[in-house]
Amino acid sequence: MSAAPQPGLSLNTATVREAWSLEQCIDGCARHAIPGISPWRDKLHEMGVARAAIAIRDAGLQVSGLCRGGMFPAADAADRLAAIEDNRRAIEEAHALGARCLVMVCGGLPQGSRDLPGARAMVRDGLAAIIEDARAAGVTIALEPLHPMTCADRSVLSTLGQALDLCDEIGPGMGVAVDVYHVWWDPQVEAQIARAGQRIAAFHTCDWLVPTTDLLLDRGMPGDGVIDIRGLREKAQAAGFDGLLEMEILSTAWWQRDPDEVLALCKERHAAFC
Amino acid sequence: MSAAPQPGLSLNTATVREAWSLEQCIDGCARHAIPGISPWRDKLHEMGVARAAIAIRDAGLQVSGLCRGGMFPAADAADRLAAIEDNRRAIEEAHALGARCLVMVCGGLPQGSRDLPGARAMVRDGLAAIIEDARAAGVTIALEPLHPMTCADRSVLSTLGQALDLCDEIGPGMGVAVDVYHVWWDPQVEAQIARAGQRIAAFHTCDWLVPTTDLLLDRGMPGDGVIDIRGLREKAQAAGFDGLLEMEILSTAWWQRDPDEVLALCKERHAAFC
Repeated sequence: MSAAPQPGLSLNTATVREAWSLEQCIDGCARHAIPGISPWRDKLHEMGVARAAIAIRDAGLQVSGLCRGGMFPAADAADRLAAIEDNRRAIEEAHALGARCLVMVCGGLPQGSRDLPGARAMVRDGLAAIIEDARAAGVTIALEPLHPMTCADRSVLSTLGQALDLCDEIGPGMGVAVDVYHVWWDPQVEAQIARAGQRIAAFHTCDWLVPTTDLLLDRGMPGDGVIDIRGLREKAQAAGFDGLLEMEILSTAWWQRDPDEVLALCKERHAAFC
Repeated sequence: MSAAPQPGLSLNTATVREAWSLEQCIDGCARHAIPGISPWRDKLHEMGVARAAIAIRDAGLQVSGLCRGGMFPAADAADRLAAIEDNRRAIEEAHALGARCLVMVCGGLPQGSRDLPGARAMVRDGLAAIIEDARAAGVTIALEPLHPMTCADRSVLSTLGQALDLCDEIGPGMGVAVDVYHVWWDPQVEAQIARAGQRIAAFHTCDWLVPTTDLLLDRGMPGDGVIDIRGLREKAQAAGFDGLLEMEILSTAWWQRDPDEVLALCKERHAAFC
């Protein structure tokens, strides 16, 4: 049994992204009594930021995060600058929504590059370029370490320890998003969750399936895989995390299903496994 | 340019496993003037250990390693004991071949388990049970950290740092196998290679493809992916590694090709990228 009470559920809109607009997600959360939501920016832009902010507030939903900023590395300076500008817009959007954080997927190697230290430097420089905007807006930047299998094409930030080193380097306004899918395997995960403390700005759930058939879109519903999700959640709470648990399931299999069924099952599995 | 001369090539027999027996691999290395070989045990058993040892010696090949021992975790004690017995046979085989090391793929979670610390304890206990045999035979046990995407089903040993902690715990006779495919993403890789020093008993090459379409069997020919293989090799040499570079490409795509073409290309890519 858990020492601290189980936090509430937040729906990451990627979980039903093929079927539902953001407006439908907001309605869905209200109908299913899910207390939080985390929109992806493409859905947010479709709906319009101001309209979405009002609808989310009217539905009484907390915004556990905005997905996502980042993607800093690029082969030329113009593209790196464009990424920084886009991140500034993302900070404004997170502020408009009252989001608990802006989740950062930092980006992989630039096209054709084998220079991993160089790509990591681009991430650091990008973050340094936007942090003042984030502080001014009161938006926490939540670095999400992604599973090492995404290092080449999505995130050269691979571990919680690496993310916290970067938080230390950039300073106030920085935090981390702990997604169990990305960090469960790490022999350092418990120590780094404890180190993170109240810098844990978001906590994402889903499960690792055996076998896993796709590196991006074969994530599992909690309970269907091998991750001790509850154990990690308890560690995060013990470290000081007091937010909602955001369920984010990128899965071509679950995207085929009726979103109302998916949300009902998310609630069940959240209660049983998260 | 490299400070130390490029080490020679060793053929890991998995690279051509669908087409060639071990006998054919030995002949192939001799014909292509490849100075080393690393057999997998299934091929070794087909040929017979004594016969293979003579053929390898007659061909003048070094044995850069024997693949593989490990796979310690299991749901019940009888299966764990069977794994330990099998590892004792593997030690005898490595000794008979004069192999530089016995490579260990430590094993994943037991069926149905979410207990990662428990599985890691089974690995430690398994190694502790066999290390005296290894010492007596003069066989180095080379722990191979596998990519975190294999944590559930193949290796709860995921990083070089974790492998070296285990070496420290078990003591003399232990070393590591550094496979660039498994460790290239790790922000600690350079520091841990330096820490490993002469405990690096094997160095494996292949490449990370973008995109990667399969978690096990889509490894790339050096030069076709994003890993700075040469940079890592130079770090290993600077740390004290003086062995051959073993090319191990688990790939359904390369397995379709004529093995003589594959070996010729391995030599080219070894010279150009490793």
